[in-house]
Amino acid sequence: MTGPARRVGVVSLGLIGGSVARRLVTQGLEVHAWNPSAPALAAAERDGVVPHASIESLCAAEPDVLLLAPPLRAMADVIGEVAAHVRGATVVTDAGSVKVAVVDVVRAAGLSSRFVGAHPMAGTEQAGYAASDPSLLDAARWALTIEPDTDRDAFLRVAALVTGPLGGVARVATPAVHDAAVALVSHVPHVLATEILGLVGSADVRDLALALAAGSFRDGTRVAGTHPRRTEAMVVDNAAGVVPVLRRAVGDLTALADALEAGEPVSGFFDAAAEVRSGARVAAPEDPATVVTLDGDDWRERLLGETRTGLVVGADTAAATLRVTYPPA
Amino acid sequence: MTGPARRVGVVSLGLIGGSVARRLVTQGLEVHAWNPSAPALAAAERDGVVPHASIESLCAAEPDVLLLAPPLRAMADVIGEVAAHVRGATVVTDAGSVKVAVVDVVRAAGLSSRFVGAHPMAGTEQAGYAASDPSLLDAARWALTIEPDTDRDAFLRVAALVTGPLGGVARVATPAVHDAAVALVSHVPHVLATEILGLVGSADVRDLALALAAGSFRDGTRVAGTHPRRTEAMVVDNAAGVVPVLRRAVGDLTALADALEAGEPVSGFFDAAAEVRSGARVAAPEDPATVVTLDGDDWRERLLGETRTGLVVGADTAAATLRVTYPPA
Repeated sequence: MTGPARRVGVVSLGLIGGSVARRLVTQGLEVHAWNPSAPALAAAERDGVVPHASIESLCAAEPDVLLLAPPLRAMADVIGEVAAHVRGATVVTDAGSVKVAVVDVVRAAGLSSRFVGAHPMAGTEQAGYAASDPSLLDAARWALTIEPDTDRDAFLRVAALVTGPLGGVARVATPAVHDAAVALVSHVPHVLATEILGLVGSADVRDLALALAAGSFRDGTRVAGTHPRRTEAMVVDNAAGVVPVLRRAVGDLTALADALEAGEPVSGFFDAAAEVRSGARVAAPEDPATVVTLDGDDWRERLLGETRTGLVVGADTAAATLRVTYPPA
Repeated sequence: MTGPARRVGVVSLGLIGGSVARRLVTQGLEVHAWNPSAPALAAAERDGVVPHASIESLCAAEPDVLLLAPPLRAMADVIGEVAAHVRGATVVTDAGSVKVAVVDVVRAAGLSSRFVGAHPMAGTEQAGYAASDPSLLDAARWALTIEPDTDRDAFLRVAALVTGPLGGVARVATPAVHDAAVALVSHVPHVLATEILGLVGSADVRDLALALAAGSFRDGTRVAGTHPRRTEAMVVDNAAGVVPVLRRAVGDLTALADALEAGEPVSGFFDAAAEVRSGARVAAPEDPATVVTLDGDDWRERLLGETRTGLVVGADTAAATLRVTYPPA
């Protein structure tokens, strides 16, 4: 089962699925796909993708990796369909922006042994195949999930696809750690941007406020331009990750408002952010401190123990080795 | 006292004051300035600005318009100094990001009859003359303040400077309406971006979260890179505008968290923002619905009655006329 993926299947050709499919075609891979609407599938065929009329037919092509990229609200149905038809050595992955909810469905469907979850931190406010772009994934940051029973060969194959033909940088996380992290850097920021627009919209100075809004406002609320159903699905499916962060935000903002009203010092609130900003060590894979090859039987335990650190994984499927790069301290 | 400004004075050559001074030099105006630190003043002199060793000396040059652009925390001292020395027909304006606090000090200093407050919605996370740039103000959105005793000639002169040599688009607001509007589109967004960074920084998944953070996170929290003392000053000086918005945000986010926890519908939260986004009518001055010349004695009342609408003002100082452009409905 080792060796790099040569044939990849994609379920659903939206912004991410379409971008994955088109990028893999340009990388010389054989890409098969199914999509619920015919026009996007036809467009993909013109772009070099082999179209299938059903998930059953796509599974029968026995792709080395089958990537599920439907909207979150359709993910459970897609997983059920895949579970009914997947066969051979196909490894299943996905591109969903929440992971606990997805792996729960995967486990219930009996697909865990061939599944490795994935989440590319890429996107725009647009959606659909027409908005897809092979370059959307250039150097994208991906999370790959690992669980106590993750299969090594499946993990290697997905990691090799993500860091090879897909051109991404991959980090490892358990589904829960992933969901906690993206609640902080994606889901809650979406909620707060949405809240800002809602506050402006309901204000009696709304028209003047929008007329005065500068570039920083447009940048800061850009993610609120995502389709409301898409943002809602992320937040609802990751309620377990989002709610505790919202509760902390409510506590912090209440304390700030109380202090402002009482004329008490508020400098600590603003200093905390400056410390994160200046101390932010967003690991650069090209500047590694330590590279470790995980060949032993303890690979899974070692990864599971360090999923909060943002370590970078690479894979060499030919040699069947897994490398971990630790960010500089 | 009519006629366009030919000589402009600038107090404090930071990011905004420096950008104003340099832009006006390129527009052929005579620009005088004072700055508390000598190196920036010397750099401005090399850029064509006439340097002064004190605010007293700057006032003695009797600029047509004197613009105050110190940090907010220094504004009261600067206004006191200006009140002691300003003379002749000089009109005083400012570039502060809050207006009630500034006009209160102006009124107490006895400067109201020659004062029109201004606020350019421009800036970066940088500060200081070295970061200034004449193009920073290209088509910038400005608010000009109007009060029941605002002098017509003073208003005309500042409006003509802002919409003429400074290349801006000017809206009119009372100080309180201005502060409510910028709390929504600037101060509270700064607070929420700061809060997001604080939440990430204190999380146990911080390193993974920052490693996964994509462009949308960096865009959405960019304003949190502003110097913490500058953001703090805006928020503290506009506590009256900021606190009610924070309270509403706390209420909305608590309701959202409660609904998520209870598994209740949350679609309304996301739809409200989409409505603002799609319905946002940020008035384009080049697409006016109605242009009205305000020549009568009721100019002040007419403007005061419509400061929430984002109407655009222009001024012709030669003809001493004031035009108002109403955004298309």
